[in-house]
Amino acid sequence: MLSAIELLGVISSAIYGVLLARRNHFDFVGVLTLSFIVAFGGGTLRDVMLDRHPLFWIQYDHFALIVFVLALIGSALKRWPNWLEKGLFLPDALGMGFFSIVGANHALNAGTTPFVASLFGVITGTFGGVIGDVVCNQVPNLFRPTTPLYATCSFLGCWVYLLLGMAGVAEPITLWSGTLTIVVSRLAALRWNLRLPPTSGLPSQWTS
Amino acid sequence: MLSAIELLGVISSAIYGVLLARRNHFDFVGVLTLSFIVAFGGGTLRDVMLDRHPLFWIQYDHFALIVFVLALIGSALKRWPNWLEKGLFLPDALGMGFFSIVGANHALNAGTTPFVASLFGVITGTFGGVIGDVVCNQVPNLFRPTTPLYATCSFLGCWVYLLLGMAGVAEPITLWSGTLTIVVSRLAALRWNLRLPPTSGLPSQWTS
Amino acid sequence: MLSAIELLGVISSAIYGVLLARRNHFDFVGVLTLSFIVAFGGGTLRDVMLDRHPLFWIQYDHFALIVFVLALIGSALKRWPNWLEKGLFLPDALGMGFFSIVGANHALNAGTTPFVASLFGVITGTFGGVIGDVVCNQVPNLFRPTTPLYATCSFLGCWVYLLLGMAGVAEPITLWSGTLTIVVSRLAALRWNLRLPPTSGLPSQWTS
Repeated sequence: MLSAIELLGVISSAIYGVLLARRNHFDFVGVLTLSFIVAFGGGTLRDVMLDRHPLFWIQYDHFALIVFVLALIGSALKRWPNWLEKGLFLPDALGMGFFSIVGANHALNAGTTPFVASLFGVITGTFGGVIGDVVCNQVPNLFRPTTPLYATCSFLGCWVYLLLGMAGVAEPITLWSGTLTIVVSRLAALRWNLRLPPTSGLPSQWTS
Repeated sequence: MLSAIELLGVISSAIYGVLLARRNHFDFVGVLTLSFIVAFGGGTLRDVMLDRHPLFWIQYDHFALIVFVLALIGSALKRWPNWLEKGLFLPDALGMGFFSIVGANHALNAGTTPFVASLFGVITGTFGGVIGDVVCNQVPNLFRPTTPLYATCSFLGCWVYLLLGMAGVAEPITLWSGTLTIVVSRLAALRWNLRLPPTSGLPSQWTS
Repeated sequence: MLSAIELLGVISSAIYGVLLARRNHFDFVGVLTLSFIVAFGGGTLRDVMLDRHPLFWIQYDHFALIVFVLALIGSALKRWPNWLEKGLFLPDALGMGFFSIVGANHALNAGTTPFVASLFGVITGTFGGVIGDVVCNQVPNLFRPTTPLYATCSFLGCWVYLLLGMAGVAEPITLWSGTLTIVVSRLAALRWNLRLPPTSGLPSQWTS
């Protein structure tokens, strides 16, 4: 089941990558590369840091083919249909939900403490997008104080998953509860524009 | 022979790194660091993702010394000779050619599918430059729609190498055919300014 | 003792990360994430490249809790006290000193040559800050020709540590001599604005 959840994450992240690449007017190879980075970046970082080999997209090698086909279709379309464009926040939220819980689960299985596992959930869920933003030369969404809750939702859902697991709830329920928490809280944050306040800046005199 | 090809890749990439650093007016330590990043970045990512240890530049530790000396010479020169400046696209293309084929070869030996091996070729051949560009705070060449074919040449050459190998051709021939394809197609792309069309951008209304 | 030195490095780097995040007006989650990146980035890169598992912050899992608490306090403060603001170059220099020597030591123990070990020292000591700067979309300090000596101090201190070790001096002395060299030379560079000259730039005609 975990690999099915991961597949859903790959698909939604790849679609987000295609969108981001088109918005930056990349050519086909750029679209393809960025889709790979967004879809595989977070999970690769997780696997490398947990010493899990082969990497998840080498083990399930149809993942790469799926991303390839999605990038091909996404590049060929002259224009994205309007409903897809407007509905894209949904796969984005789903991607973060799926990847976060799979990441926390893998970390737990590798023997980390729950707190470290929750960090791995956030890394897996958000860093594909962070690396994508860095490559496009913009400050990642994750760090912009003007955006609705993002990594916070991932952190929250990971703890729902972890606490239910500690309470002895069966795994399918904990997995889906965590994922749902992330997706629902992210959609709510987007809908009602929920944010954390920015921390006040320092005077610029200490500029190393 | 593979390690000889890798050595050629290291030398050409290091020279490219020195050039990039000088163009950004770095001091000596900046030149040195950027040369290391460009020369070792792609191969390090490949080795870490394939769980190959020790890393290639730890195993062949004279590689680091060579880069060090190149950076030292490159920083000491007041001006680059004109012919070197104008001929630098050649080592750049050679570097991508050498690294791509070595990367695809290592991935195959690690048991990946040919498609995944071709991705490793592209990663090894191009990501040193990508990381270098990111560090210099510019959108990597790889993603700019206005540049001549780049990663495409690497992808093409990897498939020439892989398909010849499947057809039973001897390894020295497949290795050099793949490398030559990359170098020649890259030089042709630069000479006749071959590019892929940019994918059309999305309207900016969906700006998360 | 090494893990005590590493702890000091984590604390000073986390404080530097909090400061950098506040200067960029991040919200709490951004402060937290950036602190983790700055405090764990260099050591994670080192551990992954040397194949040391579990990573140092998974093995010593109280490190992550300490960073979490520091980020929490740092975000809650309305204003930083003036003396802290002005004295922050000190923990920054300390962080680089602690991490560099620990990194060089781990590399030596993994069987690298002294030269490669000195590179690992520089990577461990400086790359947390580099990744932090990249994420904030600015050219890393390390590469700016207008800043006082930075990576140079790390390189210098690593060689003091390595040469004393080769000369047969006892480890506690070599460790602290190296660390002190880095901290003192960095403070001196800041105090008297010591820099390396920028290498002259190339004419822009060779813009690939």
